Amino acid sequence: MTTQLDDALRGLVSPVMKQSAEAEHVPCEKVRDEVALGHAVIPYNPIHAPSRPAVVGRAFGTKVNANLGRSTVRSGIDEEMDKLSVALCAGADFVMDLSVGEELEAVRTEMLSRCCVPLGTVPIYEALSRASGDISGLTPELLLSVIADQAEQGVDFMTLHAGLLAAHVPLTKKRVMGIVSRGGAALAEWMKNNDTENPLYTRWAEVLEICHAHDVTVSLGDGLRPGCLADAGDAAQFAELDVLGELVQSCRAAGVQVMVEGPGHVPFNEIQMNMEREHTTCDGAPFYVLGPVVTDIAPGYDHITSCIGATAAACYGASLLCYVTPAEHLGLPTSEEVRQGVIASRIAAHAGDVARGLPGARTRDDAISEARMRFDWEKQFELAIDGDYARARYEKTRDASAGEDDHCSMCGREFCAVRTSRRIHDRTD
Amino acid sequence: MTTQLDDALRGLVSPVMKQSAEAEHVPCEKVRDEVALGHAVIPYNPIHAPSRPAVVGRAFGTKVNANLGRSTVRSGIDEEMDKLSVALCAGADFVMDLSVGEELEAVRTEMLSRCCVPLGTVPIYEALSRASGDISGLTPELLLSVIADQAEQGVDFMTLHAGLLAAHVPLTKKRVMGIVSRGGAALAEWMKNNDTENPLYTRWAEVLEICHAHDVTVSLGDGLRPGCLADAGDAAQFAELDVLGELVQSCRAAGVQVMVEGPGHVPFNEIQMNMEREHTTCDGAPFYVLGPVVTDIAPGYDHITSCIGATAAACYGASLLCYVTPAEHLGLPTSEEVRQGVIASRIAAHAGDVARGLPGARTRDDAISEARMRFDWEKQFELAIDGDYARARYEKTRDASAGEDDHCSMCGREFCAVRTSRRIHDRTD
Repeated sequence: MTTQLDDALRGLVSPVMKQSAEAEHVPCEKVRDEVALGHAVIPYNPIHAPSRPAVVGRAFGTKVNANLGRSTVRSGIDEEMDKLSVALCAGADFVMDLSVGEELEAVRTEMLSRCCVPLGTVPIYEALSRASGDISGLTPELLLSVIADQAEQGVDFMTLHAGLLAAHVPLTKKRVMGIVSRGGAALAEWMKNNDTENPLYTRWAEVLEICHAHDVTVSLGDGLRPGCLADAGDAAQFAELDVLGELVQSCRAAGVQVMVEGPGHVPFNEIQMNMEREHTTCDGAPFYVLGPVVTDIAPGYDHITSCIGATAAACYGASLLCYVTPAEHLGLPTSEEVRQGVIASRIAAHAGDVARGLPGARTRDDAISEARMRFDWEKQFELAIDGDYARARYEKTRDASAGEDDHCSMCGREFCAVRTSRRIHDRTD
Repeated sequence: MTTQLDDALRGLVSPVMKQSAEAEHVPCEKVRDEVALGHAVIPYNPIHAPSRPAVVGRAFGTKVNANLGRSTVRSGIDEEMDKLSVALCAGADFVMDLSVGEELEAVRTEMLSRCCVPLGTVPIYEALSRASGDISGLTPELLLSVIADQAEQGVDFMTLHAGLLAAHVPLTKKRVMGIVSRGGAALAEWMKNNDTENPLYTRWAEVLEICHAHDVTVSLGDGLRPGCLADAGDAAQFAELDVLGELVQSCRAAGVQVMVEGPGHVPFNEIQMNMEREHTTCDGAPFYVLGPVVTDIAPGYDHITSCIGATAAACYGASLLCYVTPAEHLGLPTSEEVRQGVIASRIAAHAGDVARGLPGARTRDDAISEARMRFDWEKQFELAIDGDYARARYEKTRDASAGEDDHCSMCGREFCAVRTSRRIHDRTD
């Protein structure tokens, strides 16, 4: 078994690299070279073999991940399968199953069978769930065996909080929000209770062996990501990042693909610095960000607060955006909230790609604007990020009396600036 | 009659300056000095005398404007009054009545009587409406008389596209979207048809006389703002901006308060440059931006695309954000869309204020985060930008079985990172 990274380092273009390159409209050698450098990853476990793999890296379009999964108190297999379908229809490039509690394997099995894109997990959730949520039941062996089981089941990428060390935990004591990563907090408590080091860190070689055997892409978790603006950019966050930088090198040395997870809640003006610091510390490994959420005061609208931060992140250094739904900080999202989250993140990914001048990114903007100037509504809906919604909204207040679609109800026919502008320049098409 | 600017230049602190300063928690001398420099304005026509005036400028919190008003084919007085109420409840600091068509004076009269915040208009809309939407009926006298009538009626600020000159119109010929400003397009067509200069420019002294007599704040319209990414930052946009810079000086010399309107559709990476260029060209006059919308491909979600750009604008130089609703590019907004637009813009204003380090801006973020760590839900809702919505959303998936509010349905009780984190640091409150 060779990984995509092994192949790339040997100069081989794998079928998955070829497929990813076609989706990006770039030569497959470009994908191969970026993967070889560790500047891109293609999460793809051959056991799952997702039919729509995608390459994650700065040389390519910014991608979007949707977090799904039941909690102990809400949802079940049917609801999560509905959310999966909604997330894929809305355009998610990656999906994570973050289920905790019971039925974990059943949910994941069903999700893998229906998921045409790469699927990720956070194995410590299952380890904790097998211990019935009781941290004292966690052991290094349990954690390793969950990682192995999930790899064998076909999971394409895994969040592993291997950089959160025992020495970092006291750094979070004065934080306003402490440790807001579910896996990070559990590991920190376990380390404290047992007065020992992070088992993912101490047994990292074994973890890498499993990941290599199934080409599971490692997503180095940021267990100490800030959970509010007050905690952003503190010593805890960057101490962990330094360790993540070391772990990137060990992954690459083992032929294991690796990306790095990032914050969290970050003021808008500090996002560029965060992206650059990660890039330097982690030697250009793809950065996978959650948000960043740019203010703490908008529960119910955190798809928007994160979309603001995600656009800046995509502009300055991120390659994969984890969506945040409007339910964040309030509860488990519904299917409609999943949809809202994916759309908002796709807006950020696209706006970021346009801003950083990714070749071809603006083509679609120019095409929709030309259609707008021609009052070609169907073309606009075809090019829109959510054409069905745009069409329904247009129809809702369409001026039926006019019999013509050469205006909308915003201004009405006589006052339409586009019509006036067309007259000024004698446009007849 | 003296204007706020006249008073400030004489070293006087007016009651309105005092009231504005109290709302900002700053000394009233600071408001006076910023107004005297022309770096801030307080739109306040004594005939309207809004009970909640606000100061607009970089030394103060970023403000939000909501555009209301009927079109020729949708809405009427009752609907617009409902939207006004919604916009004010959602926290709009300013409101504009952009009605066109019939009943204009009736709508405006009703709106002025109910509007506790400063109200703005675009007088050319009424001039055109009086000419039944027929541009050939427009005359300089008609335009001046509308401006005078509206000033006497109590309008607090007016968008005047006085910087759009006849020489600029050919610069828009190769644009993808031409002229997308309703007023700008109308003036351009009138200039072309009559082969003459912009009457607002040629009779500017008379306009200023009216504005001075009623302390109407001039909002210099950007008739040539780009309507798509392809047109952003072109010769037309900046040629008009240069004229706006001259007009700022003439307003100040006449004792008339003035702010400057800005784009439009702008790629994320060009927003900072736009803000800095306006600041230089217009000698620090407050910048009032529409969006900027950072991608053209998201009709139905332009409250989000604009909120991204508006955050960057607020961070780098804008003082007043004009909301964009989800209906933009598709139709006249409903009340709910008005609400969504105001909330999104308030998020941008706040995130921008935090990012630029406005003193005190982050206090509310820190307070809500502390409440979040304590599971004090009511305090969170009290501090949230839309607490009613956040409460309802929390309740919707609240874990009723637990009997305790020390978690939410996102993770459930056993897997809650905040609970784990509290245990790690032995927090008991």
